[in-house]
Amino acid sequence: MKVGGKKFRSIWLDEGDAGSVHVIDQRRLPFSFEVMTLRGPDDVCEAISTMAVRGAPLIGAAAAWGVYLSCLEKRTGKDLHDSVMNDASKLKSTRPTAVNLAWAVDYMTGVFGQFPDAGVMRRSAEGLCDEEAEKSRLTGENGLPLIEEISRKKGGGVVNILTHCNAGWLACVDYGTALAPVYLAHDRGIKVHVWVDETRPRNQGSRLTAWELSNHGVPCTLITDNAGGHLMQKGMVDITIVGCDRATASGDVANKIGTYLKALAAHDNGIPFYSAFPVSTFDLTTDRGDQIAIEERDSDEVRMIDGIKIAQENIPVSNYGFDVTPARLITGLITDRGICRADRESILKLLS
Amino acid sequence: MKVGGKKFRSIWLDEGDAGSVHVIDQRRLPFSFEVMTLRGPDDVCEAISTMAVRGAPLIGAAAAWGVYLSCLEKRTGKDLHDSVMNDASKLKSTRPTAVNLAWAVDYMTGVFGQFPDAGVMRRSAEGLCDEEAEKSRLTGENGLPLIEEISRKKGGGVVNILTHCNAGWLACVDYGTALAPVYLAHDRGIKVHVWVDETRPRNQGSRLTAWELSNHGVPCTLITDNAGGHLMQKGMVDITIVGCDRATASGDVANKIGTYLKALAAHDNGIPFYSAFPVSTFDLTTDRGDQIAIEERDSDEVRMIDGIKIAQENIPVSNYGFDVTPARLITGLITDRGICRADRESILKLLS
Repeated sequence: MKVGGKKFRSIWLDEGDAGSVHVIDQRRLPFSFEVMTLRGPDDVCEAISTMAVRGAPLIGAAAAWGVYLSCLEKRTGKDLHDSVMNDASKLKSTRPTAVNLAWAVDYMTGVFGQFPDAGVMRRSAEGLCDEEAEKSRLTGENGLPLIEEISRKKGGGVVNILTHCNAGWLACVDYGTALAPVYLAHDRGIKVHVWVDETRPRNQGSRLTAWELSNHGVPCTLITDNAGGHLMQKGMVDITIVGCDRATASGDVANKIGTYLKALAAHDNGIPFYSAFPVSTFDLTTDRGDQIAIEERDSDEVRMIDGIKIAQENIPVSNYGFDVTPARLITGLITDRGICRADRESILKLLS
Repeated sequence: MKVGGKKFRSIWLDEGDAGSVHVIDQRRLPFSFEVMTLRGPDDVCEAISTMAVRGAPLIGAAAAWGVYLSCLEKRTGKDLHDSVMNDASKLKSTRPTAVNLAWAVDYMTGVFGQFPDAGVMRRSAEGLCDEEAEKSRLTGENGLPLIEEISRKKGGGVVNILTHCNAGWLACVDYGTALAPVYLAHDRGIKVHVWVDETRPRNQGSRLTAWELSNHGVPCTLITDNAGGHLMQKGMVDITIVGCDRATASGDVANKIGTYLKALAAHDNGIPFYSAFPVSTFDLTTDRGDQIAIEERDSDEVRMIDGIKIAQENIPVSNYGFDVTPARLITGLITDRGICRADRESILKLLS
């Protein structure tokens, strides 16, 4: 999508140097737009665990490039194989909740097992990124009719969409998941406006979502995470769309902490609540949401903001990164293969 | 309650100078404990609107002292009467949502109408503060059995209480409303632990609630506003207790923005949800919560933290200060007169 009028993806291989992968350093946004260079799997691990790159689909794409960079190392035969497998394992352990990460790494090591060749690995990572972008575009196309219908019902009036965290193009390779239908609607002249949850503690909403929407020209308003329920009560939200880090076989959705609270409020006010993601986010080996490992992150994420202390050091902090929204609160799942209900049968039908 | 082992109230008249009222500057907490002096009604208006003093009962107490300070002005007869009424009107308009403010001002002007005398006014303001503290203590006594019962059911194990914003002694004159039962339980040897919602945008949870609980020795853990739902799903919350800025005749409760989301999560997980307040917080002239005026505050509260910009200036911000929790989500109302159900009949019975 656009930054200052210029088209960008969130990750790309250097045009001249096949050993350098570029990403936007998302820790620096919105006040500074900095491109950082990853030159090996350790750089990729570091970028993922420090959240310089984040968002389930982008983490997968970055990890795929990480496996590619690993196979460039000056080793051969069993040595190379072992070091790639070792790096793959490190890449998979950087974050526990998003399923795309393991999926992308397994895909790349699968390719490597058959074709241990840098050229093939490069084309595989490129292909994975292109596919990820295309899946996001398709997710957008599939979600678009939901927004079009509300627009029609409102006689062309503004469609108010609430989103949590960042599930836009920065979280993916392009377009986004939750925001893909929003970008497509905006680009096709439908009046949209996005309520952007700040998303404490890392403020992905105020830092990333508000930044990418406004750079693309989509009207948006920043709110605290506390505000969404009130806006829904007052009829100021038409639809809620969030991303997803892992969806279970029964349709439960793990997403950024606080998503569950918005789903409850949407349900209480009869407002449609959708989760949007590529089907690779389904983890059919996990049956129910309460079986998903929920990452606990550093307490300083809550205590500090931009290096400024905002809470006392002697106060204990708990900092879970995700929560689970039960399927019963979800109106539907928007994917690259279409929309389905959040239940076992509909999911299996979609995937078959 | 205690600060560094010394007993404090949140507001008091200077011992030597009857024209000086002292308050703790709550904007400076938790990093600096500063007492500020209010020398006239304009100082009080400023302290309330800048939230140096905040919390529904304390706002009422401060406004009472504001009317007292107004009647010290060097005027007599009709001039004095007019200026006191004018100041009273200014005091009432500093914040729109909390009902205690108007209640306390009307009480003081009522006294002034009958006894336009500084001594009487001083004793009235002192009496109002003492009564406020006693009402908080009684609220605590009335809520205590709820905590005792959970403690008993858990075989003396830790009772986990979730609270939102600050409804502790800083918000009142002493003890608090939501936190009064917690302090009493702790002082009587019941093991309690409080989950403290950060409470964006002004962070009254991390700044005030965590500070006052830890100063009094009550174990607590700071969480983001997004986290409470997840903790409830995981069985880590036994009871939720919040304060109240205005309660309607039908039992709806206006409280800090985000309260509604916690009530939804408590309800969804079968966790008791209580709102605690003195009966002066009932506004029987308002029938339903959607009739309550909800204050909209400055967008810089969301954009800045401690003077540091955390969101871009070109992004619009919406900043409602309160939301309404419908009576159907409330297990009960804890007041200085006892506990009642959040419905018209029970409230009328309690008040009669």
